[in-house]
Amino acid sequence: MQDILEQLDTLIRQRMAAGNTDESYVATLHKQGLNKILEKVGEEAVETILAAKDVASQGPDALVYETADLWFHTLVMLAEAGSSSDAVLKELARRFGLSGLDEKAARSLKH
Amino acid sequence: MQDILEQLDTLIRQRMAAGNTDESYVATLHKQGLNKILEKVGEEAVETILAAKDVASQGPDALVYETADLWFHTLVMLAEAGSSSDAVLKELARRFGLSGLDEKAARSLKH
Amino acid sequence: MQDILEQLDTLIRQRMAAGNTDESYVATLHKQGLNKILEKVGEEAVETILAAKDVASQGPDALVYETADLWFHTLVMLAEAGSSSDAVLKELARRFGLSGLDEKAARSLKH
Amino acid sequence: MQDILEQLDTLIRQRMAAGNTDESYVATLHKQGLNKILEKVGEEAVETILAAKDVASQGPDALVYETADLWFHTLVMLAEAGSSSDAVLKELARRFGLSGLDEKAARSLKH
Repeated sequence: MQDILEQLDTLIRQRMAAGNTDESYVATLHKQGLNKILEKVGEEAVETILAAKDVASQGPDALVYETADLWFHTLVMLAEAGSSSDAVLKELARRFGLSGLDEKAARSLKH
Repeated sequence: MQDILEQLDTLIRQRMAAGNTDESYVATLHKQGLNKILEKVGEEAVETILAAKDVASQGPDALVYETADLWFHTLVMLAEAGSSSDAVLKELARRFGLSGLDEKAARSLKH
Repeated sequence: MQDILEQLDTLIRQRMAAGNTDESYVATLHKQGLNKILEKVGEEAVETILAAKDVASQGPDALVYETADLWFHTLVMLAEAGSSSDAVLKELARRFGLSGLDEKAARSLKH
Repeated sequence: MQDILEQLDTLIRQRMAAGNTDESYVATLHKQGLNKILEKVGEEAVETILAAKDVASQGPDALVYETADLWFHTLVMLAEAGSSSDAVLKELARRFGLSGLDEKAARSLKH
């Protein structure tokens, strides 16, 4: 599933730059500003938590759906702040000693 | 930065299975149970929101750090629910028509 | 400002019982169920936090407004769970050794 | 249960002013600053939501306890912002046309 987050980052930046609020949800959020984006992050976090509590009775599909919503809005938030998923993944790689810090080398080894 | 989330998923599942609560934060969270994990997701969401509000005065480093915390705890939550980042990325790819749904084909084309 | 919460509790219970979803927001929330009510509690908590961050630049009016929204939705949540503000205030009084535990006696002394 | 919130407001303001962080949790929160207070509001909101989801299996006691925690930390937040429960209750009274706006008159009629 590589590069999905990177592709989304690019998509979000393009739609923010284009500013077509009639056709783009991201452009609308961007125009509404940081507080609106953070409200959405908070809302999706709560919906994720509720879906997680309901997994035992209703299965994991809604949890996956709500987590996707949550991650997506954090990507919009990162773009709004001039950052991206890349910085977050690098921080996670650094923290856990994972090989993402040297991704290109890893790819060369694999292929 | 490919595969970082996948590597983290594996790490989390291993540490949950090993159950060494003396050495592993993930094992400790797993033992404390779903509510504790969800409390952490909520806490990190709020810390992320506060860091986003402070980007204008303090820069994006804390936001990246807190978002990493948030994503990490959502991975622990997904593992606890028997799911993983892969399902979430597939949902995002499906939603936005991204190429992650056919990742192996994409890799073949690249390399 | 005595009794406001008590009056609100009564109002909420009446509107839940009447079930007029055309005219009553509380009846609508009640019909949508617990998850919807908890989503609102979460949303209002986040809006309260954002308003608190903006007090320095925009004054406290929005914070008061959002806190009112948050408390109101916790009252709806308590009613949905068969409880009320009275139980919460008693718990606060107990915890801090306040005189609310003996309210009627206090009233008698005052009047 | 009248006046509990008002008594708590006074207590919180006194402890903030005294600043005795060895003995007072409120003084400690005040010294740690607004972000720490808002993190606590967020945490308690999430714990309240989780307790509400568990009422069906575990009864309402934990919900009452967590809501008390949430309300208490919103009072600390209001005090930090130079406001109080009185402003929030007035806003609720205004919104719902309750008699709190004319509390003294109401008391006179009652007694």
